[in-house]
Amino acid sequence: MNKLVDIVEYMHLVGRSARSAARTIARASTAQKNSALLEIADTIIKRESHILEENAADVRDAKKADLAAPLVDRLTLTAKSVQAMADGLRQIAALPDPVGEITDLRPRPSGIQVGKMRVPLGVIGIIYESRPNVTVDAAGLCLKSGNAVILRGGSEAARSNLALAACINAGLKAAKLNESVVQVIETTDRAAVGHMITLPEYIDVIIPRGGKGLIERISADSKVPVIKHLDGNCHIYIDEKADTEKAVRVCDNAKTRRYGVCGAMESLLVHEARVHDILPRIAKIFADKGVEMRGCERTQAVLAAFDVKPATVDDWSTEYLAPIVSIKVVVNMDEAIDHIEQFGSHHTDAIITEHYTSAQRFIREVDSASVMINASTQFADGFEYGLGAEIGISTDKIHARGPVGLEGLTSQKWVVLGDGAVRA
Amino acid sequence: MNKLVDIVEYMHLVGRSARSAARTIARASTAQKNSALLEIADTIIKRESHILEENAADVRDAKKADLAAPLVDRLTLTAKSVQAMADGLRQIAALPDPVGEITDLRPRPSGIQVGKMRVPLGVIGIIYESRPNVTVDAAGLCLKSGNAVILRGGSEAARSNLALAACINAGLKAAKLNESVVQVIETTDRAAVGHMITLPEYIDVIIPRGGKGLIERISADSKVPVIKHLDGNCHIYIDEKADTEKAVRVCDNAKTRRYGVCGAMESLLVHEARVHDILPRIAKIFADKGVEMRGCERTQAVLAAFDVKPATVDDWSTEYLAPIVSIKVVVNMDEAIDHIEQFGSHHTDAIITEHYTSAQRFIREVDSASVMINASTQFADGFEYGLGAEIGISTDKIHARGPVGLEGLTSQKWVVLGDGAVRA
Repeated sequence: MNKLVDIVEYMHLVGRSARSAARTIARASTAQKNSALLEIADTIIKRESHILEENAADVRDAKKADLAAPLVDRLTLTAKSVQAMADGLRQIAALPDPVGEITDLRPRPSGIQVGKMRVPLGVIGIIYESRPNVTVDAAGLCLKSGNAVILRGGSEAARSNLALAACINAGLKAAKLNESVVQVIETTDRAAVGHMITLPEYIDVIIPRGGKGLIERISADSKVPVIKHLDGNCHIYIDEKADTEKAVRVCDNAKTRRYGVCGAMESLLVHEARVHDILPRIAKIFADKGVEMRGCERTQAVLAAFDVKPATVDDWSTEYLAPIVSIKVVVNMDEAIDHIEQFGSHHTDAIITEHYTSAQRFIREVDSASVMINASTQFADGFEYGLGAEIGISTDKIHARGPVGLEGLTSQKWVVLGDGAVRA
Repeated sequence: MNKLVDIVEYMHLVGRSARSAARTIARASTAQKNSALLEIADTIIKRESHILEENAADVRDAKKADLAAPLVDRLTLTAKSVQAMADGLRQIAALPDPVGEITDLRPRPSGIQVGKMRVPLGVIGIIYESRPNVTVDAAGLCLKSGNAVILRGGSEAARSNLALAACINAGLKAAKLNESVVQVIETTDRAAVGHMITLPEYIDVIIPRGGKGLIERISADSKVPVIKHLDGNCHIYIDEKADTEKAVRVCDNAKTRRYGVCGAMESLLVHEARVHDILPRIAKIFADKGVEMRGCERTQAVLAAFDVKPATVDDWSTEYLAPIVSIKVVVNMDEAIDHIEQFGSHHTDAIITEHYTSAQRFIREVDSASVMINASTQFADGFEYGLGAEIGISTDKIHARGPVGLEGLTSQKWVVLGDGAVRA
């Protein structure tokens, strides 16, 4: 038997087990699911030293293989991050159970009552990089929402993930749940991902987490629906009627609070009437904080006292995730909205204005997962939105859009209650 | 320039026009969209004789080409069906506009308010068979929900569809809307479909309507998300605690009201305790109405007085869409649910019972788009559910599930309202 057949058979085995486990977790009680989450948290704490040992071995190999420093950072666990994983599970246990909720149950003229029941999606496949905390976080969210999950983490984290998977399985067992509810792919063979995304009979949705290249590749090849997060090229438009103080405060926060997050402002659009009073104040803050500015010709002229590089067409569509910002002067809101439509990534875009109709038009017409008025784009986050947790941020329009919490891991089926009702 | 290049260029042109038109229809007022719907309805009535002439030419050619009689039936328009198309548009105009609705707007501890706004999906591609009424129906639903639409109907209906498209364009023009909001693909070249499903940059979702084979092919090849309707292998399970009269009445309706609809019962599961009192009464009705019965061995034994053929494994998974029913005796509800999970199509399944806990378990555990208690599976329909209209019934779990009305043609984006709020 060759290696390829082994992997194909292995993935089918994993898929079948997940499908079968999905039925048991879908009907598990809230108490049982919460009990599993707390048991997993306790086990992780109990096995902290073992988890850290396995992780240290992963980190040692990664350094030997010259993995880039930021990736080694993401791979590395500490006593503090192990505690954070356990705390995260306890927080998920404390969230309301989305499964079983019936809404909009209404009587119909025919005599039936029709409503919607929230139910798990079934089996979720998660493909991610070498970040062991994702293993625990994703397992917890899928478990709470009544789904089985197949986890495929980066190969550099293989030992860490297996140690964490053992904790998860122990917790499931202690709560008398099927251990196959959470399965970690044990092979580091890259072919496993290729098979995983072609198993719609076993997997209901794939959530890839990682770089844009990985996600685009998976989306292109997947036969399973994908909930994907591409880039966050977020804009703030400072309207003619913007309040100066709000504009300065929000732009500062949206760019400089953190540079590497998907909700960071990458492009600033300023109404031509406000380039003289607002823009220099913001430029001063950016210059002081070491943010590189790349502007259109008008921006360069207005900010002649600052070091502003010329912006190229590429700049308008770039998610820097770095202390760099592109700046463009626009003649009106239409030009701003057109620019966002042409160059944006439909992630998060904001307007700063005190003008009622402009605000209304902006939130209606800008076609992004999150549209904001007088607020920092860095609010784009499941916790900030009140979801209690977040498995990712979707840039899709189908199914889940924007920050995805427990509800995004469910669907709604119709329930029809009759009393012997027949259709005319 | 060869033919292939022509089609590729043509589809890109159509896609670009649709994307651009989508922005204008997304922000159109409810009054303007309703005005367009009513104008289209009026134009269709005014041009009735022209539409019927073009349709007659299509029908003449279809008969010459020996198109099967049921397909010719579906292709054929009459004065009555032209009137029905216009009436349908007026009904859509009377429905509430789903676009712009903001729900769940709640204050957060950070000071921002977060809610969801319902917005159009953007551009919808509809691929369907030679049924000219779908052209008008689909155009009306997409227009009302603020989407642009690209329609690709069967080639046998080409002239009918162009005549209807002209009415639609005239109505859009009269309402001062972009005529490219509704585009009918003008080439009958089959390659057009192949290109249409690989244009995610222009099309947000594809809805194929037609036979299972067509839909499976499109789903397999599409690079655009698909809302699909595969088969409706619907079950009724008669529980140990079923009310006899309700069971008889509902099974009769679910099978014999109409045979060719996706909500028709195809498989009857009967608890072994009720095979003697309920099953023969249902069998008598089926026999009287000419419904062929195919049963398991126990069914054949109980119904020895009737002509019951042996059911094969294929029968359990077949959507007959015909006066045929498969019947199986089960020892308990677990066996019934297992059978539905193994052989069903996750479309619509019902239980007949007076037992509270069995009813609760059934609606929770059966993983179908519609799950019913004491009601006929033939209720699975957007109008019966109160959606006011229906573009199809989805057997997917992602995005829209079950009957899809206007809401299924929209997504929800997040809106964040601040007052200069910054994230801590």
